[in-house]
Amino acid sequence: MHQAIETTTIETRGQGLYEISRAARDFVSGAGITTGLLTAYVRHTSCSLLIQENADSDVQTDLKGFFARLVPEGMDWLVHTTEGPDDMPAHIKAALTQTSIGIPVTEGEPAFGTWQGLYLFEHRRRPHRREIVLHIIGEA
Amino acid sequence: MHQAIETTTIETRGQGLYEISRAARDFVSGAGITTGLLTAYVRHTSCSLLIQENADSDVQTDLKGFFARLVPEGMDWLVHTTEGPDDMPAHIKAALTQTSIGIPVTEGEPAFGTWQGLYLFEHRRRPHRREIVLHIIGEA
Amino acid sequence: MHQAIETTTIETRGQGLYEISRAARDFVSGAGITTGLLTAYVRHTSCSLLIQENADSDVQTDLKGFFARLVPEGMDWLVHTTEGPDDMPAHIKAALTQTSIGIPVTEGEPAFGTWQGLYLFEHRRRPHRREIVLHIIGEA
Repeated sequence: MHQAIETTTIETRGQGLYEISRAARDFVSGAGITTGLLTAYVRHTSCSLLIQENADSDVQTDLKGFFARLVPEGMDWLVHTTEGPDDMPAHIKAALTQTSIGIPVTEGEPAFGTWQGLYLFEHRRRPHRREIVLHIIGEA
Repeated sequence: MHQAIETTTIETRGQGLYEISRAARDFVSGAGITTGLLTAYVRHTSCSLLIQENADSDVQTDLKGFFARLVPEGMDWLVHTTEGPDDMPAHIKAALTQTSIGIPVTEGEPAFGTWQGLYLFEHRRRPHRREIVLHIIGEA
Repeated sequence: MHQAIETTTIETRGQGLYEISRAARDFVSGAGITTGLLTAYVRHTSCSLLIQENADSDVQTDLKGFFARLVPEGMDWLVHTTEGPDDMPAHIKAALTQTSIGIPVTEGEPAFGTWQGLYLFEHRRRPHRREIVLHIIGEA
């Protein structure tokens, strides 16, 4: 049994989904593991991870639209407001999605379905440098 | 250290929760692993996975009711509408729940609590054939 | 490759976030594993797990406030009401967050970001005894 671990960095340019499926596939093939478990973990609490459809980009537009409506800026009861109006909504959106996703690996590839992509979901308005830790354990 | 991987198929018959605890237990015992980590991963973006109470089925009714109210069909600002009125709400409900769940295995069983069951949560109205990848790594 | 598994118990005192980062770190260092994968799994369906900011406790106050507003007690369409007005909302809040979180381990520590903490999110009003299973697999 073997394992590998690596930190990938994404430069985000505002709210939305950034696909990282390619980075995940490259990490798996670079590790030389054909069967195993891949874990993606984001080291932040105002962005998150999501598996979503990568066929029609309208899905990403609507996901962003839904979360903006569910967790709007300007909720007047918030107490954590010192880091800007988009910060506490960002933490809440992160809580509603995932910080970590485990993906089985088979035939040297993450077991994504036909229409699945792995995304970093940025919840802050300004550009951020985001670290994602990729870990894999398995056999060649 | 050993591992096993298998794809299980569920035929859904509309929106709701479909328990797959039995399939998970059978996979673990078939793999002959007594201590380890089980991962369930669904290869779709309009259904999801959930650990929930399996004692009173009213809990499942209310979960379905809540998500139907939180993410109703007919939100007029949606742009991804080509696959039917239940499709984009299905993607959003999947984003709000899980695509992947890791469950430690001990004494040859997933470490479910007394009232816990593992469910596929179908968000589409029509029947679908859903693939769940089960992976386990551990020791006999 | 080595692994370890342990059950940690938390005594909660009502709704809110209880940090368990220390227990996770202690488990990792006790297992003597420097690179690997840590999984935290909660054996209940009316509380959940969350990675969130551990710098400003106002973030926790606002998370609790948001979930209380999103899933209020007293929704009159609920059918599962026999276990008290806070029980079904607790199951829903658990469905919206996580039962299981995988965290890569590097240099003998969970790969938490600078501001990240691991929390048990209690959704019931009364004190509860909660079991969290910690599993790690990796190399010394």
